[in-house]
Parts: sequence; C-alpha cells; structure tokens
Amino acid sequence: MELDAERLRDDIETNATFGAVAAEVGQGRTVLTGSEADKRAREYFLTRLEDADLEVRCDAVGNIVGRWEPPGCDPNGSPVAFGSHLDSVPRGGIFDGPLGTYGALEGVRTMQEADVTLDRPIEVVSFTEEEGARFGVGTLGSSVATGELDTREALELEDDDGITLRERLDGIGFHGEEMTDASEWDAWMELHIEQGTQLTDADAAVGLVESITGITNCEVTVTGAADHAGATPMFERSDALAAGSMFVLALERVAEEVATTHEAAVGTVGQGSIEPNARNIIPERVQYHIDIRDVDHGTMDTIVERCRLSLARIERCRDVTTSLSRYRDTPPTAMSERCLSAAAATTPDTDLIRLYSAAMHDTANVGGVTDAGLLFAPSEGGFSHSPREWTDWEDCVVASGVLAEAVRSLASDAE
Amino acid sequence: MELDAERLRDDIETNATFGAVAAEVGQGRTVLTGSEADKRAREYFLTRLEDADLEVRCDAVGNIVGRWEPPGCDPNGSPVAFGSHLDSVPRGGIFDGPLGTYGALEGVRTMQEADVTLDRPIEVVSFTEEEGARFGVGTLGSSVATGELDTREALELEDDDGITLRERLDGIGFHGEEMTDASEWDAWMELHIEQGTQLTDADAAVGLVESITGITNCEVTVTGAADHAGATPMFERSDALAAGSMFVLALERVAEEVATTHEAAVGTVGQGSIEPNARNIIPERVQYHIDIRDVDHGTMDTIVERCRLSLARIERCRDVTTSLSRYRDTPPTAMSERCLSAAAATTPDTDLIRLYSAAMHDTANVGGVTDAGLLFAPSEGGFSHSPREWTDWEDCVVASGVLAEAVRSLASDAE
Repeated sequence: MELDAERLRDDIETNATFGAVAAEVGQGRTVLTGSEADKRAREYFLTRLEDADLEVRCDAVGNIVGRWEPPGCDPNGSPVAFGSHLDSVPRGGIFDGPLGTYGALEGVRTMQEADVTLDRPIEVVSFTEEEGARFGVGTLGSSVATGELDTREALELEDDDGITLRERLDGIGFHGEEMTDASEWDAWMELHIEQGTQLTDADAAVGLVESITGITNCEVTVTGAADHAGATPMFERSDALAAGSMFVLALERVAEEVATTHEAAVGTVGQGSIEPNARNIIPERVQYHIDIRDVDHGTMDTIVERCRLSLARIERCRDVTTSLSRYRDTPPTAMSERCLSAAAATTPDTDLIRLYSAAMHDTANVGGVTDAGLLFAPSEGGFSHSPREWTDWEDCVVASGVLAEAVRSLASDAE
Repeated sequence: MELDAERLRDDIETNATFGAVAAEVGQGRTVLTGSEADKRAREYFLTRLEDADLEVRCDAVGNIVGRWEPPGCDPNGSPVAFGSHLDSVPRGGIFDGPLGTYGALEGVRTMQEADVTLDRPIEVVSFTEEEGARFGVGTLGSSVATGELDTREALELEDDDGITLRERLDGIGFHGEEMTDASEWDAWMELHIEQGTQLTDADAAVGLVESITGITNCEVTVTGAADHAGATPMFERSDALAAGSMFVLALERVAEEVATTHEAAVGTVGQGSIEPNARNIIPERVQYHIDIRDVDHGTMDTIVERCRLSLARIERCRDVTTSLSRYRDTPPTAMSERCLSAAAATTPDTDLIRLYSAAMHDTANVGGVTDAGLLFAPSEGGFSHSPREWTDWEDCVVASGVLAEAVRSLASDAE
C-alpha cells in the first residue's frame, strides 16, 4: 500500500491553521478544548472523515469516532481502532496529536484505495483534552472511554474561568449522547511523535514503544516559621525555603543514583511556591509538586521512599515539619506484543528501534482495557510542546505507513 | 513629669479601631495609605493635635506635622521633632507606628501640663507610608522629607490597582501643598516597638538604638533549560531550580559563617519564583530576591561578594547561567550620641540596654540629615506585623516618658 503523502501533509497543515500562533522559530498552535480553534479543528476533521465515507459519531465528552466497515468485515465484530488527539498545549507544536489522528485517517483512505478486504471494522479516533491544558486532567477523553474517569465527573470539571467541560463542549456543538467503550475494541494503535531524540540518534524511522512509563506525583510541604528577615539572627531561624532547597537537591540526587541502573527513572521538582513570599520575611512554608517516572513501578516506589527518608532527615537537622502526599500513582503500562509485532512485521529491522515512552499518552489508558500499541515518529532535536517541534514530512509518511500496515494486519484475523 | 497613662492608651486604642481586623489571637489592623481606615486614623490624629492646641499642617505627600511653640522658645529656632507613622502592613499590629506617634503627642501634652519652658519649638510628626505596603516603597514620607526621594516621583507611584499616591491622598483629603524639610530640625527622636526580644530577654524597659542596620537587596536569576520532566534523562538536564536551591543554601551558609563574628549580619531568600512552574516541565529559570543586613557596611559587601562567588561556582559545576543585580544598597545609619545621651540621662541604667535595629525605620532617613535617635519599647514574644504584636500598656507609658524627657532636654539649649 502506498500513502498519499500530499494528502496527509495537506490535512496536517490545514489543521495547523486552527489556533495558529506567531513564533520566531517554527510553527505553533494553541488549541484548547472548547475554544474556537478546537471547534474549527473538529469541524475540519469531521468533514475529512465524511469525505472518506466514514460514519461519524461524537460521544458525551467530545471524543470523535469515524467508523469504516471494510469489504469482507463482520459489522458486529470488535473493531480495530487507531488515532490520537487534536488539542494542544498553549503554543504547542503542529504534529503532537494531529500526526496520529490524520495518520490514521490516511491509513483508512489508503486501505480503501488498495481495495483491501478485512475481517473487522476500523475506527479512527480523536480523543478530547489529551493535554489537560484546559481542565487540568491529561488524557481525559481516553480516561472516560476506558472507565478510569466517570463521564459526569469529567463533564463537571471546570477550567480556570469556572466554565465546565459540558458548557465548553455545548458551546462548540461537540457534546454528543453516546459513550465510547474502548474495551470493545479488539486492538488499538496510536502513532505519536517521539518528543525525544532516541530515533534521530539511532537514525531509525519508527519507534516501537514497549512500555509507557508510570507517573507518580507527590505534593511535598516544608513548614518553618515566618519571621522578620532583618531582626531574626541567623542561628534562630526556621527557614522553610532553605530546608526545602535541601529537599530539591536530595530528590535530584536520589533520581540520579537510581538512574545509573534504571535509565528511564526520573524525578523532578517542576512546580513550587513560597509563603508568604516577601523579600523581608523568612519563608514560613514551601510547597513542591514532584514528578517521578519509570518503566518499573518498584523503582518509582523506591524513589518515593527515599524522598520520605530525606524529609525525615531534614526534620531532624532543621526545626521544620514536612509532609509528602502521593496523590497520583499511575503504574507503567506494557504495550501488547501482538500490536508491536504487527508493526514490526511490515518494517525492516534497521528502520526500527524498541524504546519506552516517558510521556503519558491516551494509549496508556487504552492499554489497560485491550491490546494496545504505540508507535513513535522522529522528533527533530526532541523539541515538543513548542513551535520548534518538527517531524519531516517524509518521516510522517513512513511512520503512518507502518501504522496502516499494522492496523490492516490486526484487522485480518487470518494472519 | 508624669504622663497621663489613660489618655495615651485611649488614643492608641481608638486608633486601633480604624481598619481593625478579626484575629483569633491578639488585635490587628490594616491601614493602607489612602484607604478609608487611613483617612479616619488621620482625621482622629488631626483632632487630637488640635485638642492640644498644636498648629497642624499636611505636606505634599501627606506627612502630618503638629507644631507647638512652648513658652520661652524662639519661634524662628530649629525645632526638635519626634513621632512615627500611622499606616500598617495588612493585618499588622496596633503598636507598630502608633506608639511613637501618640507617644510623642502625649509627651507634648505632658510638657504643656508641666508648664515647661523650652528654647525650641516642638513638632509632632506622622510620616506617610512607612511600611511600603501599598506603594512598594518603605519609609516613603521620610524619604521625601529628607530629599532622598523626589516629591513628584513619589506622587506618581502607583499601587497594585494602578492608582497613584497623588490620587489616593486627594481621595482622602490629605494632599497638602507644603514641603517638610527634616534637615531644618535641630534633632529628631522616634519611639518604636522593638519587633524582637532583646528587651524582654534583658528585662529592660527601653532600648537605645545605636545603629540601624543597612539593607542590601539583590535579584538573583539562574537560567537552565526547560524540558519534558519525563523524557529528559537525569544526566542530560539543566535544572534551574536544583541549581537555584544550591544558591539558597550557599547564601544561608555564608550568612551563618559571617554571623559567627558579626551577630547582626543576616542574609535571607524570602521571595522567589519558578518558570514555567509546571509539574511536568524541568524549571527553566528561577528568580530570587535576597535581603542582606548588618550594622557594618563592609560585611554586607562581603556577603554579596561571596554570593557572586557561589553563583560562579554553580555556573561551573552545572550547565546554567546566573546573574546578580544589587538594586538597593542602604548603608547602616549610626544614631546621634547627643540624642541617645538625652534619653539615657533620664533613665536608670538598669532599665536600659543599647542595641541595634535590624528593621528599617523613618529615623534611618532622618539620621542622614540631622541628629537622630531611636528608642525601643519591649515587644512581647517579639511578634510584629501580626495581630499577635503586643506591648504592655505600662511599658508604653515608661518608654513614652523617656521619649518626652529626651525631647524636653534636646529642646533646652542650656542643658
């Protein structure tokens, strides 16, 4: 099968015009769920699904599904689904999401033109709010489709303006009635850009993701005593920021030590706040949000445990109290060997590498309820969530071709 | 001379009703420059000055001066002035400022009732915006009165709502025409609460401040590279928060080392920010505001220099860039021995201690243009800028008595 490279590029470039932002370098877009840009992106996607004669439905949280019943298929059989998402972070790139969404549609169009006969129906999917940029919950649409998140609860989520997801979806006309149940899919595949440089470093065209790392998030607080920065002698202080800075360095050290033997293991303090945060007042309290990931759940537990030990030590050697609350613990998700093999079978070994994904994807949710596979296309320089994000058009076509062949294979029971 | 303890207490308690805030412990108030609370506090003060037959004027930045020409004085002689301020920080205490302001007025009333004869006119002063809580510039009124800050520049300062000091003062009817020139005063005295515990620790009634520490403020930035917290391996990071945390601990260590020989020396990181401050992004940039104080200007320079060395070391051992901008450098101010002696002469040595002030006061400005003295009254527990701030009424009276005797002595050339 040969994809139509121009058609795929046209779709991604047209999609890039919705929410386009000015950028000194590269090409960016801002597509927040329920925005005007999101509405236009969805409407164009709908049109393109219908152009390919797919039967389109929009579910209760705005997930869009286009269904194709290929010649020879059992319409009552479990479908093979593939796709990605169309939303973006603020000032995000044009490939993160759209490549996998339009790559899937191009796969269907290519199969149609190749007059393939398949055993199972095919569904092309675009999940709502993968980035969590508006409602604070990443992979929202797939969480609902896999039963991780209750539909009603999702619809009541509020954005920073106090407007609910329900209202936002109603506002753009993409609040459907039905439910999507990912567990009814026989298999699922997603193509995504790598957001790293393992593929370009290895000069490989396609990455087969063996595992999506788990994520643990903790909130750490360190509480000392606010006092006058001038009148409180150095040896009579309980400075929460100084104690907190010890913790930041301790987490870094622990993650580095663990990473010497577990290369995927990472620990980051990306977010923090200081109270009262005034130049002339000794900090009373600091709060940090930490992010720990690995392909091994046990290693993640180890890092959290060593954070607790570090905080206990800081309490002992400084006059502060501390707390650690592990408020999210998503275990690593192994991809289905059946899906990986379907992709590997179509591609020369030299063009492939096997790797892990340190970024979260909708496929992590879907992998919890059915066989799932994730493919990566190369990211130039590894840039992501930025207008500098780039994947060569040639690479888009090659990776989409592997995706199409894999789905064709998965939908053919004979194989 | 004997003060009227009830009258002083009544004035401070009445003043405490303006901007009063609910507090679980203690008694607090919020009196921001130009607010309704400030208006009422000023109007009451005006009335009380007039009740004592003082001639009142309000200058161009709202400083209020009540003038008394005592029997025997030369009306053209340089006056002896004393006072403090009536504004507060949000949820501040009821003594910080008002004790010195109403203590001065009570001193005048007491001298009047004692039928004293003096050589010089006496002025009771309340400075505008000592706390800097609304317009961001502390000791604003005295800065203008001492020529440190241009009147027009001060009036154009904007608060967080974009409203200028001029508009705020016009709004409450306290924007006068005249200028106050502190250099015309023969001497100046201020009574203030200690905001520390040296007096209560020593069981002393009054503190004679020998020096007000200098303040240096610096802005420190550390810049690394923002990157995906999951996909960026531990050994390929340039984490600005980890590097910044090294700096926070370095400043603490330097200040502690210096403080082993210079007890007043302090260094604090009280304020900081992280960019982009998202849980799943490695921090690109941290910015800190640091506060360095000592009674010795050279020591302050030493601490800043060692901060620069520390940043240079952090640049060397981590892949970050740093900057340090020393945007404020107020040298320490020595108090006039003449003013201190005038206070000491009236008080048994056992009731006095000599100490330094680590907090900034209007007197630091006035000390730059004329002889100035600063007295401290005890602060229970050292609490300040809080409803928990407290000074026993007895202690208020004793310290105000010392203030009155000192001013009486300073205004008598014969002595």
